[in-house]
Amino acid sequence: MATAGKVIKCKAAVAWEPNKPLVIEEIEVAPPEANEIRIKVSHTFHLHHFRLSMQPQGFPTVLGHEGAGIVESVGPGVSEYQQGDKVIPLFISQCRQCHFCKSPRSNQCSSIFSWISRHDAMAPPTSRFTCKGKELLQFVGTSTFSEYTVVNEMAVAKIDPMAPLDKVCLLGCGICTGYGAAVNTAKVEPGSTCAVFGLGAVGMAAVMGCKAAGAKRIIGIDINPEKFEKAKVFGATDFVNPKDHDKPISQVLIEMTKWGVDFSLECVGNVSRSALESCVQGYGVSVIVGWTDLRDIAIRPNQLISGRTWKGSTFGGFKGRDAVPQMVKVYMDKKLMLDEFITHHMTLDQINDAIELMKQSKCSVCLLDMDFLLLRHICDKDRVLNTGSFTVNPCRIGVY
Amino acid sequence: MATAGKVIKCKAAVAWEPNKPLVIEEIEVAPPEANEIRIKVSHTFHLHHFRLSMQPQGFPTVLGHEGAGIVESVGPGVSEYQQGDKVIPLFISQCRQCHFCKSPRSNQCSSIFSWISRHDAMAPPTSRFTCKGKELLQFVGTSTFSEYTVVNEMAVAKIDPMAPLDKVCLLGCGICTGYGAAVNTAKVEPGSTCAVFGLGAVGMAAVMGCKAAGAKRIIGIDINPEKFEKAKVFGATDFVNPKDHDKPISQVLIEMTKWGVDFSLECVGNVSRSALESCVQGYGVSVIVGWTDLRDIAIRPNQLISGRTWKGSTFGGFKGRDAVPQMVKVYMDKKLMLDEFITHHMTLDQINDAIELMKQSKCSVCLLDMDFLLLRHICDKDRVLNTGSFTVNPCRIGVY
Repeated sequence: MATAGKVIKCKAAVAWEPNKPLVIEEIEVAPPEANEIRIKVSHTFHLHHFRLSMQPQGFPTVLGHEGAGIVESVGPGVSEYQQGDKVIPLFISQCRQCHFCKSPRSNQCSSIFSWISRHDAMAPPTSRFTCKGKELLQFVGTSTFSEYTVVNEMAVAKIDPMAPLDKVCLLGCGICTGYGAAVNTAKVEPGSTCAVFGLGAVGMAAVMGCKAAGAKRIIGIDINPEKFEKAKVFGATDFVNPKDHDKPISQVLIEMTKWGVDFSLECVGNVSRSALESCVQGYGVSVIVGWTDLRDIAIRPNQLISGRTWKGSTFGGFKGRDAVPQMVKVYMDKKLMLDEFITHHMTLDQINDAIELMKQSKCSVCLLDMDFLLLRHICDKDRVLNTGSFTVNPCRIGVY
Repeated sequence: MATAGKVIKCKAAVAWEPNKPLVIEEIEVAPPEANEIRIKVSHTFHLHHFRLSMQPQGFPTVLGHEGAGIVESVGPGVSEYQQGDKVIPLFISQCRQCHFCKSPRSNQCSSIFSWISRHDAMAPPTSRFTCKGKELLQFVGTSTFSEYTVVNEMAVAKIDPMAPLDKVCLLGCGICTGYGAAVNTAKVEPGSTCAVFGLGAVGMAAVMGCKAAGAKRIIGIDINPEKFEKAKVFGATDFVNPKDHDKPISQVLIEMTKWGVDFSLECVGNVSRSALESCVQGYGVSVIVGWTDLRDIAIRPNQLISGRTWKGSTFGGFKGRDAVPQMVKVYMDKKLMLDEFITHHMTLDQINDAIELMKQSKCSVCLLDMDFLLLRHICDKDRVLNTGSFTVNPCRIGVY
């Protein structure tokens, strides 16, 4: 390929500073170094950190941690991937060598700690991006809001060459996060009753995971009732709008189910204690799904002492390099819905319009396709459940 | 038996009002009604709620929820128990009929909710106790600080006739609580590394449970280093005194173990977040053991999202009627230590001296044997870990 070994000039949406519009710039993408892969990004999405409290030291950067593409070239030492492979970048690596990768119980590859070593910046120590003479940081090691990106091979999943990238790109984060939280983390059981708090894309995927695991009753909770019809598509059987009730949502759910739900999945993106409190005491399991606010959350210890379990997972507990190709297969076998998540498309030039759209509170699962950029609007701006008021932010990432 | 069907007059330690000394009184114990058993208590212990914030509506009462005795008589409908049986009263019933009793996942018999229906009082709606013309409440349905007590059959475990009551009485709460939290709730795995916070009797039992489950390394944490020698007897391999460190205990444990411990058991009686934070991210499991303060506790959601699990259990997850006889057998097979917990004896007349002794902070596991009363001093009065200051209270019970 003519570009291999050369610096590539391409377009990217650059975040020069916090809370400012992204700027479409021409950037330079250096060739991959040892164990790195340069990827031509075909699709990406997620408005990660657009309006969030990302640390100033994280800028300038190229955002985006969900997407798909094709291997353009590989650096020295890369043998598992070659030019032309279809791939999905991973924001959680799978080095396959570390204590955690060797454990069947965790997807928290320890390489992420050295590799994305600049926690404050949420980026690896070096980047292959430059623009106007300045280095751009590589957000969580992926930076998919660029036509080209360079990713360490331990953070790349090679997928079926027949897979449609404009669909399976969704498996790079949100869908696996929600689905896996139900299947891998909560370990939802056949015949059980589940509650999914928040029916954004992650919540919808959690609903789908509950159904795949055999749940009999899946209660979707959202303050936007327009989401309920869509949630039915993924398997939700009951719906609760907290605005319809003047008592805590946990009490509503306990009254609906006699004892409380067997499993609850907190997908609002801003954890409240409601999901835990909605679980049946004795054996209920509540899962905090995906990233959330960095602030503390309080519970009453007796809520656990009476037999509940409180868990959480990142990326649905999936070890990405192994699991994402399998999830692609599940999709291609028509056992997983992805197309149904995509409801909107937009072009790259409209990216800041897309951000404005995101700031409005009317859409539930709105996918924006912008030339090479798909942006997902997963949640409303400011939501209030009757358990307390909170601001919803899409998937804040922080040091953990 | 001459007493069957008659009111029995006997001695009991009566708590007339909160935070006042107990008074040894002659009380009347009415015969057992339908499905009830009158027990001659041979041994009891635990300074439950002596100096606690028990609600005023819980008085006057006869305290005590741990002990052992012999069936004196049974009420109508009781067929499983008969006069002369050795029994251990249970503060968590096992009705064997309810949703929770039928589930293998929980010991939270729902009968406790109707039966101990006066949550504020922490007592069943009626009692067989009177004293000086007043009804005395039956604390958590057991009231073992009396020579005789009347307990519903669903809260009585029938044990081996050869069992020594002065030892197996310890299985009525604390020892099962700690041991079961390790074995049943945390499900400690062979070869694992565990941390036990607080080396009172419950903590020592948790250490014993970790060892029984095959843990390779068991780190005991207490601010009283005098407890460490005793903890070795139960299986602890390493010790940490938070007073020896000027950093959070979780950081000390992570440095000792590289990633954090596989399992942590919070047995201090006043939950801090240290135990959870000491667990390895990715798959660490932390258990709040037994009852604790009623105040909220805050954590950072990302501590769970990065893969930890936070659980709790009451009575170690044991279904008492089935499990306590089994635990008695384990003891009699010399596979469980009980004798080693008992370090001190005292007579009934000294009960208020025993309370004073408890208020001092020097003893770790101090069992007081007082004529028919054994009182256990499980914890110091005011302990400070360097993660924050707190007051230790022995096993507060509250609405959950």
